[in-house]
Amino acid sequence: MPNEAVDIVLIEDNPDDIELTLRAFKKYNLTNKIIVLRDGEDALDYIFSRGKYEGHSKHERPKLILLDLKLPKIDGLEVLRELKGDESTKMVPVVVLTSSKEERDLVESYRLGVNSYIKKPVDFAEFMECIKNLGLYWVILNEIPESWN
Amino acid sequence: MPNEAVDIVLIEDNPDDIELTLRAFKKYNLTNKIIVLRDGEDALDYIFSRGKYEGHSKHERPKLILLDLKLPKIDGLEVLRELKGDESTKMVPVVVLTSSKEERDLVESYRLGVNSYIKKPVDFAEFMECIKNLGLYWVILNEIPESWN
Repeated sequence: MPNEAVDIVLIEDNPDDIELTLRAFKKYNLTNKIIVLRDGEDALDYIFSRGKYEGHSKHERPKLILLDLKLPKIDGLEVLRELKGDESTKMVPVVVLTSSKEERDLVESYRLGVNSYIKKPVDFAEFMECIKNLGLYWVILNEIPESWN
Repeated sequence: MPNEAVDIVLIEDNPDDIELTLRAFKKYNLTNKIIVLRDGEDALDYIFSRGKYEGHSKHERPKLILLDLKLPKIDGLEVLRELKGDESTKMVPVVVLTSSKEERDLVESYRLGVNSYIKKPVDFAEFMECIKNLGLYWVILNEIPESWN
């Protein structure tokens, strides 16, 4: 599998949210470096280079993993637990982007070591503004190590 | 000591950087909820409500701790280690804002669990823009638990 550097890994199953998020990223020229994964199992396979992603270099770390919580197969909190519990992936920035209004999801995400937690705005314009700020902050402003090893 | 809710704790010893940061926050109406602490010891005393800050409620958690690395008395990485190593403070978002160009500072900050790492722009306009984005992202967009306990 060819390794093209990916800036953003979007883990999201809702087609409307995927479309809106990609549309916002496109506006800020980030879409050519984004990959969309639609369930928790596929996301973990991708990040840990296993299953159908075997051979994909684990050294190619994204600048940001954008993680929904309600996901098919393996839910978002479990994905977060695995990412932050593994030495090879714990330093990759993870932002939870969710419709959940549950305080326990918020607390548990921070307990597991999430870097930031954003509630999806319902309003269209606010959603676009949110994705703009979030994308620019994590892709342009935030620094990550050159090598994770 | 009266407890006024604080949104941002700025831990920084360079007077020019303090002035510029406060100026940028003022522009976005955040300065009335910011406290500036000028060395690592004072910062830890404040956050852990000890020394001259005894009696200050530990439950009043800021939305963001903005942390310089080169600090008098106790350096920034040690401050970060204590914050992220304590159950009562590990969930408070910490962003390192530094002039350091050392890759090891970047790697060590992520190892210790920093939420985000920003290199201080040298250019004045870029610095103001950086503080604007950073402040709006962490104070407005990012969610923290209502209670940390």
